[in-house]
Amino acid sequence: MSKKISLKDIAEAVGVSTALVSYVLNDKDEKTRVNKDTARRIREMAKEMNYQPNQIAKSLKSGRSQAIGLLVADISNPFFGNLARAIEDEAKKHGYSVLFGSSDEDLENSQRLIDTFVNRQIDGFIIAPAEGTVSQLEYLKSANIPFVLIDRYFKDLETSYVVIDNFDATYQATRQLLKQGHTKIAYVCYQNQLQHTADRYSGYVSALRDHGLSEDSNMICEVEFNNSVYFRQKFIELLHPERGVEAILFSTNTLSIMGLKIVHELNKVIPDDLAVFCFDESESYDLFYCPISYVKQPLSRIGKEAVRVLLEQLRGKSSAEQKVMLEVEIVARKSCQKRK
Amino acid sequence: MSKKISLKDIAEAVGVSTALVSYVLNDKDEKTRVNKDTARRIREMAKEMNYQPNQIAKSLKSGRSQAIGLLVADISNPFFGNLARAIEDEAKKHGYSVLFGSSDEDLENSQRLIDTFVNRQIDGFIIAPAEGTVSQLEYLKSANIPFVLIDRYFKDLETSYVVIDNFDATYQATRQLLKQGHTKIAYVCYQNQLQHTADRYSGYVSALRDHGLSEDSNMICEVEFNNSVYFRQKFIELLHPERGVEAILFSTNTLSIMGLKIVHELNKVIPDDLAVFCFDESESYDLFYCPISYVKQPLSRIGKEAVRVLLEQLRGKSSAEQKVMLEVEIVARKSCQKRK
Repeated sequence: MSKKISLKDIAEAVGVSTALVSYVLNDKDEKTRVNKDTARRIREMAKEMNYQPNQIAKSLKSGRSQAIGLLVADISNPFFGNLARAIEDEAKKHGYSVLFGSSDEDLENSQRLIDTFVNRQIDGFIIAPAEGTVSQLEYLKSANIPFVLIDRYFKDLETSYVVIDNFDATYQATRQLLKQGHTKIAYVCYQNQLQHTADRYSGYVSALRDHGLSEDSNMICEVEFNNSVYFRQKFIELLHPERGVEAILFSTNTLSIMGLKIVHELNKVIPDDLAVFCFDESESYDLFYCPISYVKQPLSRIGKEAVRVLLEQLRGKSSAEQKVMLEVEIVARKSCQKRK
Repeated sequence: MSKKISLKDIAEAVGVSTALVSYVLNDKDEKTRVNKDTARRIREMAKEMNYQPNQIAKSLKSGRSQAIGLLVADISNPFFGNLARAIEDEAKKHGYSVLFGSSDEDLENSQRLIDTFVNRQIDGFIIAPAEGTVSQLEYLKSANIPFVLIDRYFKDLETSYVVIDNFDATYQATRQLLKQGHTKIAYVCYQNQLQHTADRYSGYVSALRDHGLSEDSNMICEVEFNNSVYFRQKFIELLHPERGVEAILFSTNTLSIMGLKIVHELNKVIPDDLAVFCFDESESYDLFYCPISYVKQPLSRIGKEAVRVLLEQLRGKSSAEQKVMLEVEIVARKSCQKRK
């Protein structure tokens, strides 16, 4: 490892004071009254010794670097990890760093993180809001701190957001299962008041109705967030032969993975014993013995759009709220087929 | 959604000015010269209307919240997502928020993030350092900014760190494959100068030697980071029948997943056609048709220890560097077996 060259090293090599070296090297406009020959010798020596100015000190001096605060629900959820990465890649193109925090779907955590970011003068926020955080967002609005919501939004709160068309996502996925001839289609979802949860449920129910079927409470498995014991119990109940479930639509990636693991454990063969349609991408879908069907969210476009909308706010180009709704891609593969 | 009660609402209800309400409610010691009856009426009304003081404004006033900066290599890598979550859970117990950033194994990104965090007066760092960032860490040391390295460390740099015993991890995994009777054991790794990469390679080679086998360059597949095209080419070469590979040890989780996908694509059956031993956990290991063997890192303990070491530095309890090396767990399952 080569030693880092300091101002002192250059000073010693040229035979001048460290202060003089600092003075010359920080004097970009060369307006110095230092002897021109000496200044030249210092600059040449710095170049020769491959001097790297201390970036941190420089940055501290020149004021703050630009940073976006990103609040996600859970950073260990690959959906948010990949979305964070997409936002980071896009922000970097525009010279912004991204600092993340995760609320774990908890009101207090969300508040604490917002405080932490605001205290540290973050330029603006991209937020996947937890349930019940409307008042926190209202505060950001009233304090004129720019932010954009992603993944979720609140119907009664005027904000910029970038979301997918959640109704259409589950409508299309349910249609795929109906097209295969399934009629006993179960739906697995979280129990919460978030708008996207409601929209996804409506998409499922509407597709059934448009097909002449009515919703059946026996086909609904609604579970609490972060409670895998409860999920296991409810999900195994759902698979009980008496219920006659032919196909399952999972409405999030975490539910998809937890559900697939139990189906696998119970030795049910997909799609012969049970057809499945999952939500979001997972590295396991391609490694499963049967290619898994899923609703693919446009992560990279969500990232790009969220950064664009936020930067327009930061740069004062746009004061109106921007509401962006993106289409999903329906990846229908073997797992949704019906046994002939 | 109930409307948030403001100071103005209380003022109107009591019939006094908003300024007076603010004055009374912020005067915790009740040293105010406001009429005692009026003050009491304001406090009672605030309680009755269920007034919640604005937490963000309070926090801004009371000085900064406490926060740890966490630098990981890539937040979309589930290993780092899960590790970040473990650190977050532990930090929360001690009243600290965690802000993340990811360097994408890039020197400049790492520097920019360190700048951003330092500028924003982060209390201390937990860092999974990218290759070549020694001078950045030296700067943090010289600036007396507390930090702890995780996952990786540098032999020539005196710092606190929490890492796993990488040599032992691959030594034990290789031993498992040898015990099954495999002798043509290939090793898949990244090409870099990081200490843990070198330690894992030494573990593999030492296990071979202790078994009377010598290393064979035909059995090594060394690839660049973030270059999946190059990986595919090198990995397919490795699987060429002429090479006679019987088993593969993957030395990271990303290599494990990329490799498994190609093995699966080529319709090679694990473990009959090829035995595999992977690194780190993945949701796909349990969903694979054959239970995958892997080296399990103690993520929760790494998180706990990293936070403990950092907080001891922050609280001035410890000035000496603390070097923590944790044991891994070897999860040997069907995927490492040899065909009888």
